[in-house]
Amino acid sequence: MSFTAAVADQRFVLEHVVKIDELAATERFAAASPDVVDAVLEGVGQFASGEWAPLNREGDTVGAKWSPDGVHMPASFIKAYKEYVAGGWGTIGVPEDFGGQGLPFAIQTAVLDTLGSANMGFALCPTLTVGAIEALIHHGSPEQQALYLPHLATGEWTGTMNLTEPQAGSDVGALRATAKPLGDGKWSIKGTKIYISFGDHDMADNIVHLVLARTPDAPAGTRGISLFLVPKFRLDDDGTPGAFNDVRVVSIEHKMGLHASPTCVLSFGDNDDCVGELIGAEHAGMRAMFTMMNNARLNVGLQGVQIAEGATQKAVGYALERVQSARAGSAVKDAVRIVDHPDVRRMLLRMKAQTQAARALVYYAAGQVDRAGLGDGAAKNRLEVVTPLAKAHGTDIGNEVASLGIQVHGGMGYVEETGAAQYFRDARITPIYEGTNGIQAADLVGRKLALDNGGAFAALVADMRAEAEHPELVALIDAVEAIARRLATLDADDKLAASYPFLTMTSVAVCGWLMEREGRHATGDEAFAIVKRAAVRFYLDQIVPEALGLKAAATASADVLYAVPAEAFAA
Amino acid sequence: MSFTAAVADQRFVLEHVVKIDELAATERFAAASPDVVDAVLEGVGQFASGEWAPLNREGDTVGAKWSPDGVHMPASFIKAYKEYVAGGWGTIGVPEDFGGQGLPFAIQTAVLDTLGSANMGFALCPTLTVGAIEALIHHGSPEQQALYLPHLATGEWTGTMNLTEPQAGSDVGALRATAKPLGDGKWSIKGTKIYISFGDHDMADNIVHLVLARTPDAPAGTRGISLFLVPKFRLDDDGTPGAFNDVRVVSIEHKMGLHASPTCVLSFGDNDDCVGELIGAEHAGMRAMFTMMNNARLNVGLQGVQIAEGATQKAVGYALERVQSARAGSAVKDAVRIVDHPDVRRMLLRMKAQTQAARALVYYAAGQVDRAGLGDGAAKNRLEVVTPLAKAHGTDIGNEVASLGIQVHGGMGYVEETGAAQYFRDARITPIYEGTNGIQAADLVGRKLALDNGGAFAALVADMRAEAEHPELVALIDAVEAIARRLATLDADDKLAASYPFLTMTSVAVCGWLMEREGRHATGDEAFAIVKRAAVRFYLDQIVPEALGLKAAATASADVLYAVPAEAFAA
Repeated sequence: MSFTAAVADQRFVLEHVVKIDELAATERFAAASPDVVDAVLEGVGQFASGEWAPLNREGDTVGAKWSPDGVHMPASFIKAYKEYVAGGWGTIGVPEDFGGQGLPFAIQTAVLDTLGSANMGFALCPTLTVGAIEALIHHGSPEQQALYLPHLATGEWTGTMNLTEPQAGSDVGALRATAKPLGDGKWSIKGTKIYISFGDHDMADNIVHLVLARTPDAPAGTRGISLFLVPKFRLDDDGTPGAFNDVRVVSIEHKMGLHASPTCVLSFGDNDDCVGELIGAEHAGMRAMFTMMNNARLNVGLQGVQIAEGATQKAVGYALERVQSARAGSAVKDAVRIVDHPDVRRMLLRMKAQTQAARALVYYAAGQVDRAGLGDGAAKNRLEVVTPLAKAHGTDIGNEVASLGIQVHGGMGYVEETGAAQYFRDARITPIYEGTNGIQAADLVGRKLALDNGGAFAALVADMRAEAEHPELVALIDAVEAIARRLATLDADDKLAASYPFLTMTSVAVCGWLMEREGRHATGDEAFAIVKRAAVRFYLDQIVPEALGLKAAATASADVLYAVPAEAFAA
Repeated sequence: MSFTAAVADQRFVLEHVVKIDELAATERFAAASPDVVDAVLEGVGQFASGEWAPLNREGDTVGAKWSPDGVHMPASFIKAYKEYVAGGWGTIGVPEDFGGQGLPFAIQTAVLDTLGSANMGFALCPTLTVGAIEALIHHGSPEQQALYLPHLATGEWTGTMNLTEPQAGSDVGALRATAKPLGDGKWSIKGTKIYISFGDHDMADNIVHLVLARTPDAPAGTRGISLFLVPKFRLDDDGTPGAFNDVRVVSIEHKMGLHASPTCVLSFGDNDDCVGELIGAEHAGMRAMFTMMNNARLNVGLQGVQIAEGATQKAVGYALERVQSARAGSAVKDAVRIVDHPDVRRMLLRMKAQTQAARALVYYAAGQVDRAGLGDGAAKNRLEVVTPLAKAHGTDIGNEVASLGIQVHGGMGYVEETGAAQYFRDARITPIYEGTNGIQAADLVGRKLALDNGGAFAALVADMRAEAEHPELVALIDAVEAIARRLATLDADDKLAASYPFLTMTSVAVCGWLMEREGRHATGDEAFAIVKRAAVRFYLDQIVPEALGLKAAATASADVLYAVPAEAFAA
């Protein structure tokens, strides 16, 4: 079975979760009429299933290749990327002033959902470009915006994020890359960055690196970090890419998956000839980086949705074809398709329910980006609260569903040719990058619970409670509220010890809330509505109670963890 | 950090869970004195860490290679295998009459635990030989036993299990391989088998294939299946391997992991020159196969322990070295080792607790093998009940722990050179082969709950209840009992819909019961006892309540699954 975009669910979620009609009623997003939205969803669906999905396996088996002159993508990717640019798919969410179509971030989310469900490794390239665009929109000078944004919007040029160094992973403040003033307002950049996705490739005319570095005498830690724009090729006076800017790709990582995406070690200024421009103010780099990182976190959560969608479609296709064993307890002794066996069907419905729940969660967050952009302060707070949930729980779901996808395939799932294993391998990075899921949990119980003196989180709880009806869901919301109050009183160790189970409980509560709402609207007899109702019922009846089982862990203290001296773990 | 055998935990579990002293008090297992057991555990630990663990990565990156003349293993594996044979590690659990040391199966389990923790793919070869030995001990003729067992015991010859064909996976009864009588008591074997682990290799002088096939006019389904012994090389009159027996390895699978283990497509009798001997009676093949399969299931559950042990050691080693970020809430602003961050420590303690729980569960089952072998009928029933738990939950734990192992490593976990990813990839086959975990769950709610009119399961519940103290554990045992009673009243669909969550709940109850007992014995101040107490506390306080969260799923009906027409899943 080949890939088909999940247009029906996307449209449904945009309507009932994002409430796209409210956005379309604003002047800024007036373009997001139902017709346009439909055309975008259908159009990118056709493009992705026709052009990108067929390359998913080549991305895995051939993938990006390093050579001394840079990273080479398979020829098919170069061609398909140019078609992506020509189709204008990169411009969807970019404001019209900068060469885009000015549609909501939520619509761009749906576009990336489809592209990544077809080919997650490939879609990571446009995803990173989105981050660079966000940073320039919010922090770039008018000149920088004019020079770079139109090309980034189309995707003719792509973007990267350069944070990590060997000694500076989760601890960004430990970075050592330097920027020295050249006297002409520009800066000489020097340093080595690792884990740079699409840090080099040959699909675009230029690559716009956004690089965190320290200026001379900058304060230690994150407060001394500045953000620089460092193109692979410097722009000539007419704005076209010209001279090589001394950014070398030293190597690419040999990863478990996501082989279509070159994960680069980049060396800036080996020959002292790497020139960058400051974005925003000196020492304000972390703020600018967070602008791109927050949306990037949503887009990584979205990768969970992508993987879950792709893995589910593949498993369903297999289960509808593979014939094995008669149905237990049946008078008919002929072997049936495995979709008819209860435990296989349980796995498939779980996959459907989790995929839809993750989509609801991530799209909901995307809708808050748009509302926040319209000046809605409550939405800005809501976005802050749900971002770690979308990133962490979305990717946790992607991994769970990919694993179930292998299980549905049985032995065939472990054989690479089938493709189920690729989803599983590709998915495993998503709980790690853009802030590990543990960092997301820390963000939730730290910054986000404290936001607005607890008001931001309380408002989410209030919204859920006002709508929730299913008794287990109500119980979960109650538990989340009580634990949140309790967490606020604890010291850092106890907070953090409980953070991950609390994040999961909160995420499931939000998903349950949104899924229950979806269920109310899923009337009718068409297959989509039938599956939706079953998925909602499964989610509320089975997955929500599982999350309640985390209450003990979310209220456990750190004592048990520190009862073990660090060295004793090796005993 | 290099691999160290988990001797302290093995000894502890043998003492308090297996109660090895009770076994050693019998005539049959008198050899299993504390000194001997210690010598075995320490000896295989040194051998595995010195000789097998260093080859784990080569097994992954180079692995087994197919060529027209057969499968070739890396030279280092051939050498290390011969050292395994010379060390006598294969003979541990084989009765003395057949050239073995006559030690309990539980000790052999510990030996395989260590070998597989060092190098799971490699250890699969001896694991399969164990299965062949079991089948011959229980169903072979005295001549077959005399000819084959001593060589299988040492490992000079290795064994395989040949069940699966393309159309016959979980549904073994659908197999088509044939055996025709040759008139001299021997049989001409013909057919193709897939997924044959170590179906060919060049480490041993002969390979003894145990092959399920149909004799002429055999009844359809499993009742018409017979088991044949088919050597790669026929034995000359003096019992040494001679002429090639027309068993060809057509190809090996390109798998996600476990690359050291060649997964072969074997073609028997392409030139009508493949000769086999019947093992046991004609049409009694399934019974014989179940003999080897049941212990094989325990040994696959043990692979979960192996992976969990290896992955935990690697993650602990990394967490003790990697320095990143100051500890939150601490006055000291210097970066600390990540082991000191609460959420990392939570992951490590969870890994420890789950690994120990899986070891307790699988070793407990292994102890029942020995007791059943001594004629203890209650132990035979207990073994039947816990076998699906050990296989399914042991492997589920292996997968969970391997995934946590990657997470502890952060980005480094996704880079293959680190080795954390290999555990994750290797582990993923274990919930599939030797009967998928779904099949195990079906076995539990079907055959095993019904065993002895429910008495076998009730006896397990009674034993747990008699000892359990932790309130959540008691609640879980109560829930398991109540759900078991309820399941007995349901039709097949409802039973199977609830089977997997019920299996998990039951497994966690058994693990909790055994872990709580271990906790009572873990006194003292040495690192092992400190970790054990913390692991037990974590298990009872946090993991047991999670399993209680599955109650809703374990009591859900199949209605929601069949509310969706099969085809609608593709909508």
